[in-house]
Amino acid sequence: MKKKDRVTNRAATHERGSAKMVDVGDKPVTKRTATAEAVVRLSAETLKLIEDGLISKGNVFDTARVAGIMAAKRTAELLPMCHPIGLDDVGVDISVEGDNSLRISARAKAEAKTGVEMEALVAASVAALTVYDMCKGVDRSIRVTDIRVIQKSGGLSGDYVAEDD
Amino acid sequence: MKKKDRVTNRAATHERGSAKMVDVGDKPVTKRTATAEAVVRLSAETLKLIEDGLISKGNVFDTARVAGIMAAKRTAELLPMCHPIGLDDVGVDISVEGDNSLRISARAKAEAKTGVEMEALVAASVAALTVYDMCKGVDRSIRVTDIRVIQKSGGLSGDYVAEDD
Amino acid sequence: MKKKDRVTNRAATHERGSAKMVDVGDKPVTKRTATAEAVVRLSAETLKLIEDGLISKGNVFDTARVAGIMAAKRTAELLPMCHPIGLDDVGVDISVEGDNSLRISARAKAEAKTGVEMEALVAASVAALTVYDMCKGVDRSIRVTDIRVIQKSGGLSGDYVAEDD
Amino acid sequence: MKKKDRVTNRAATHERGSAKMVDVGDKPVTKRTATAEAVVRLSAETLKLIEDGLISKGNVFDTARVAGIMAAKRTAELLPMCHPIGLDDVGVDISVEGDNSLRISARAKAEAKTGVEMEALVAASVAALTVYDMCKGVDRSIRVTDIRVIQKSGGLSGDYVAEDD
Amino acid sequence: MKKKDRVTNRAATHERGSAKMVDVGDKPVTKRTATAEAVVRLSAETLKLIEDGLISKGNVFDTARVAGIMAAKRTAELLPMCHPIGLDDVGVDISVEGDNSLRISARAKAEAKTGVEMEALVAASVAALTVYDMCKGVDRSIRVTDIRVIQKSGGLSGDYVAEDD
Amino acid sequence: MKKKDRVTNRAATHERGSAKMVDVGDKPVTKRTATAEAVVRLSAETLKLIEDGLISKGNVFDTARVAGIMAAKRTAELLPMCHPIGLDDVGVDISVEGDNSLRISARAKAEAKTGVEMEALVAASVAALTVYDMCKGVDRSIRVTDIRVIQKSGGLSGDYVAEDD
Repeated sequence: MKKKDRVTNRAATHERGSAKMVDVGDKPVTKRTATAEAVVRLSAETLKLIEDGLISKGNVFDTARVAGIMAAKRTAELLPMCHPIGLDDVGVDISVEGDNSLRISARAKAEAKTGVEMEALVAASVAALTVYDMCKGVDRSIRVTDIRVIQKSGGLSGDYVAEDD
Repeated sequence: MKKKDRVTNRAATHERGSAKMVDVGDKPVTKRTATAEAVVRLSAETLKLIEDGLISKGNVFDTARVAGIMAAKRTAELLPMCHPIGLDDVGVDISVEGDNSLRISARAKAEAKTGVEMEALVAASVAALTVYDMCKGVDRSIRVTDIRVIQKSGGLSGDYVAEDD
Repeated sequence: MKKKDRVTNRAATHERGSAKMVDVGDKPVTKRTATAEAVVRLSAETLKLIEDGLISKGNVFDTARVAGIMAAKRTAELLPMCHPIGLDDVGVDISVEGDNSLRISARAKAEAKTGVEMEALVAASVAALTVYDMCKGVDRSIRVTDIRVIQKSGGLSGDYVAEDD
Repeated sequence: MKKKDRVTNRAATHERGSAKMVDVGDKPVTKRTATAEAVVRLSAETLKLIEDGLISKGNVFDTARVAGIMAAKRTAELLPMCHPIGLDDVGVDISVEGDNSLRISARAKAEAKTGVEMEALVAASVAALTVYDMCKGVDRSIRVTDIRVIQKSGGLSGDYVAEDD
Repeated sequence: MKKKDRVTNRAATHERGSAKMVDVGDKPVTKRTATAEAVVRLSAETLKLIEDGLISKGNVFDTARVAGIMAAKRTAELLPMCHPIGLDDVGVDISVEGDNSLRISARAKAEAKTGVEMEALVAASVAALTVYDMCKGVDRSIRVTDIRVIQKSGGLSGDYVAEDD
Repeated sequence: MKKKDRVTNRAATHERGSAKMVDVGDKPVTKRTATAEAVVRLSAETLKLIEDGLISKGNVFDTARVAGIMAAKRTAELLPMCHPIGLDDVGVDISVEGDNSLRISARAKAEAKTGVEMEALVAASVAALTVYDMCKGVDRSIRVTDIRVIQKSGGLSGDYVAEDD
């Protein structure tokens, strides 16, 4: 086998399965929205401390919302194959569900060639981890669960609405 | 009421519940470890595509591991009240469980005044979101769930091992 | 009160006053400019050391300009409710005023749905703090003051020019 | 002149005044604290909107505090000659002064070879700019002023307390 | 000389040669591509360890590709005068050349007012440094060389193809 | 084969060759230094423009030095398997060599469990790419070459000095 062939063969081997971004160069810019959720399961005692403003690290909901919004803007730094895009809006809402859980809902919006569901997922996840961080001193068994996309719109593949849980 | 009193009273109002870091200035530096987990639920078809190396964005497990390790190093940038610390080690393992899920296990290690469970949780969460990102083109209903701390050691409050699930 | 009502009520409470970005999704993309200023007050001795190139940390003006330009590009990472946008131009000028102060003028330019005054303000502020950092070894009483927007153009609410100081 | 000499001479020229960090390799690790302040001047109407929770971008004080704390952790990314260090604590307090101004006080704490006044200054400055950003829609003439170090301790050059204003 | 003149003169001095971005405000948005290369020279033994998957830090090629792609997205944070832009695609390929070297080829693509050669160069350089980092435990004499732009298209100054090496 | 075995076997497959940091938890903290170099090859005309201060983007050497120092502080964000560490000093020198090249020398210093050669290499590389960026408007054939470690000290494996080129 000649030297040149050997080089080509070896190179081929290394490129199989190698990570790559999706080339969105020829995709149109459209209005995109996405909503993602995360659920935080925690003890009733911890939930009461949060609601009464007695967590020593401070206002949990406000801090988690700010953290989620800021994290959404850094999605492309965290997820290797995400495209860096501008964002028109990011928002995070937190609601209490029953005695043991919080539901975090994050929405993202952009005019872009690619969807914004990862931005919404990052916002929801980091908001949830912020709740964990602020309450871990009083509750070691907090769990973040059910992180998923609830809705997305604007892509070529059509809009998406998650089925009921 | 005099002007000065008024100022003081107003200030007091604004500081109630305000977010703050825990002051670890007087805590000793000790060896810390933590392990966190996340579970990714996906379809059997998607799981097979990952295992066969047929996801077009590339090698999912390798990319997710790298993303998780890199994210752990940025924990203090993402979580508002986390202390910036050096890290001695971060690792991410991914294993297939049954036909519909992946278990991601992340460990972090440091000599520090504060624990490393948030670093482990961020690593596991971002690795899981990376799986989501790389597979979302073929599976819109992926869900990340059961993010929790499995073990931590080295803190003043004693070691912790999560109860069986 | 039924369970569902209670959930709704609680959620409402948490969302009052919660931080959010302005949704700029329906705003047009226009050419935006902004200029911001900061003043650094320092001793005549320190100012002379800067001008004579005798500050041991190096060329203060060049370093401050570079720091200001680089910081402007990270505005959306620093300010929680700022939108991430591309920038067409950022520039920082520094001039000596009398014997005790420097005037830092920063301009930013973009085609965007939102203004660039925060980018200009961040550039001016970080350039000023860089002067502080490089000279603090010889002058402990430096003060950064009068950070404000001097001019902005391109927004729906009309152009703005600050009144004379 | 020989070639070699010429090279040496040219190099010397380029290094005169070139920016450099202070080498702290031989300095001892000591407990450091610093407090910095910034003042935000705004209209009485704007101040009342903030206090009544009527700024549409949300809770101004909480968001500014979180932004200041997060920015302090990135001081070495913003200021070219700052050393990257761990931080034991960062806190930001905001108080209303009279009818037209807010006083922002930021403190930082570390065990390090170098002081933490830049971290405190960055926290105070970014908290102030966050107030600006959240209120600029209702008040275009906000001004950030009097950014300065109030106190520092722990360095070889002795403790420092700013003179009364 | 009057005070005002003196101020003007001093200011002029400081602005000579000061760093600035190129103002691209009036440039059209066009499709841009660029390809850059880097060569890593290493020992035949090290190259064999990489190919056999025996480097203890893990899969070198996959990790280097991910690192290069992620670094490209942060070009404007690293290079002071680079404009922050969105990216449509980034990719990194690695091929073995002979017994002692790897050739890293990075491509970037965007619709922007400015070229993407710096993004391609950063991707190639950081991928190369990642190879260095992962193999430095077994080979201290690795060298990264021949970092250059191979091709660029889309700018006003016409397309560019590097001459053969 | 039972379910449990199957899980174990699959997991084993995925972990072969997976990227991981070196665990430095049991390594002693020692004083570390490293020096790295990069060479920038450019035309004599470009070199003269730099030396005469006629590059329109500004002072090339000062800007490149600042960029290199700032990049060194972000080494662990760029290189996936690098440990985040504090740094005691980073410096970048640039000298003209003959008519067609610049030699960039970067040094890093830390007290850490791990070496600082990657920090020095990142500083040298980013300083070199900054030269490229600032001069690319006048010279399309610039090339960065010979990036390598010149010296390192402080590790368990003994000091290292590169052989003469």
